[in-house]
Amino acid sequence: MSTPRPVFFVSDSTGITAETVGHSLLSHFEDEAFDETILSFIDTETKASNAIDKIARAGKKTGMRPIVIETIINPAVRTIIQQSEAHVVDIISTFLNPLEEFLGRPANIRIGRPEISADHGRYQRRIDAMQFALENDDGRRLEHYGQADIILVGISRSGKTPTSIFLALQANVYAANYPLTDDDFDRPVLPKALEPYREKLFGLTIEPKRLNQIRDGRKANSGYASLRKCEDEVRMAEALFRKYGIPFIDTTRLSIEEISTRIIVDKRLREKISTV
Amino acid sequence: MSTPRPVFFVSDSTGITAETVGHSLLSHFEDEAFDETILSFIDTETKASNAIDKIARAGKKTGMRPIVIETIINPAVRTIIQQSEAHVVDIISTFLNPLEEFLGRPANIRIGRPEISADHGRYQRRIDAMQFALENDDGRRLEHYGQADIILVGISRSGKTPTSIFLALQANVYAANYPLTDDDFDRPVLPKALEPYREKLFGLTIEPKRLNQIRDGRKANSGYASLRKCEDEVRMAEALFRKYGIPFIDTTRLSIEEISTRIIVDKRLREKISTV
Repeated sequence: MSTPRPVFFVSDSTGITAETVGHSLLSHFEDEAFDETILSFIDTETKASNAIDKIARAGKKTGMRPIVIETIINPAVRTIIQQSEAHVVDIISTFLNPLEEFLGRPANIRIGRPEISADHGRYQRRIDAMQFALENDDGRRLEHYGQADIILVGISRSGKTPTSIFLALQANVYAANYPLTDDDFDRPVLPKALEPYREKLFGLTIEPKRLNQIRDGRKANSGYASLRKCEDEVRMAEALFRKYGIPFIDTTRLSIEEISTRIIVDKRLREKISTV
Repeated sequence: MSTPRPVFFVSDSTGITAETVGHSLLSHFEDEAFDETILSFIDTETKASNAIDKIARAGKKTGMRPIVIETIINPAVRTIIQQSEAHVVDIISTFLNPLEEFLGRPANIRIGRPEISADHGRYQRRIDAMQFALENDDGRRLEHYGQADIILVGISRSGKTPTSIFLALQANVYAANYPLTDDDFDRPVLPKALEPYREKLFGLTIEPKRLNQIRDGRKANSGYASLRKCEDEVRMAEALFRKYGIPFIDTTRLSIEEISTRIIVDKRLREKISTV
């Protein structure tokens, strides 16, 4: 196994964007091995100098030129990072000059973080949506279904809770959820509590084998986790979705981000997020 | 007020990365008005053609050339999007050629999503971490503190719950939390339940005025929400943090992403995420 090449995601904020874009770029070189480090909050010239020293040391140690993927806003800080001997990928400023030309005006570089206070309202809605997801987890408060933008329906461990929370974080969506249990399968009819909210329902399903693994991780060798039980529940849940025309999605091979975005697009939960 | 210029974030996946990078770019032009649309799952040539039609219509309607910010992987799909009359910002492929030259090998373009099964372990840890945050919310299960990577300590509405959940999502961190209540302020000593875990504690605080607004949004005009009560609680919490040398952060002007990253960096919770 060859030495992995050092990669640094460098940001004057969290580094989350640099890491995400960086992973997307590096995933095109699957035969290369990379050793990744995120350097967050590199927001002064001193920190930038320390960062390039660190990057240089990694280069020396491995005998390989490092890669730096950065999203730094402050020009003085960015200039120092660009003096690094690494191969520097500059996610933001690469596109700023062409945008300045296109818009016919100079970019104004705001150093430091924007005043968040103006943004408190929007931010608070995100927190409120998250709180709503938590308080309405697992059908605990059926009386709040009226306030929900969407009600996720599915059997235990099909992904309802993480999806509700991510819907809140991503797009301020108020998501409640309703767990299908054995009681609901006695007769293949829509649970009474859901009747008034047919338009808000969205089903989650999952491959029985995968469900079996997940449940086994929580209650090993239980009846609840058995493949037989998983197969029965999945079949009954999907039959219910089909009978009542409830749209549903198989979560087995999707990330939370993808599940959440597909639901937003399918149910047109946010005007600005769509497909064609 | 001038007509906002249409902006499209276009992706063959969720569009979350295109939107994040796009916002970062557009925030440099604060005097311009933009009308933003996310086009997710543009993963076929047909969808790409429909997308550029939609973009062209927006251009015609407003009389302004739109901006397209895209992260499309599939070259055939990307080529179509690039034929749009818009100003196209191509986040991924702009950097691929230089990276190919640097690494001395061609990028292999994987069309379609990677097999997630190999990734199930890592993915499951993320879900497990999220589940841990939910089950350990608000000090419900003190007996699980041993398993926690970190225990967030703070008064009601200081941001403990959203931060715990985001720590899980971002970096698989197992975060529990402990709510400081009036009982804990009777005597200014560390709550007994926290004694064995001094090293894992991290405090959250918030400006009393902002706390007052948030609490008022939940229980208007209550004693709980009063500015006086907020001031008292914040003062006592911060005194406790200082007395016991518990590191803490003021969440008032920070996003969840920033709070989470600062905690990871300060407490060295993840080897790969640091500052210098």
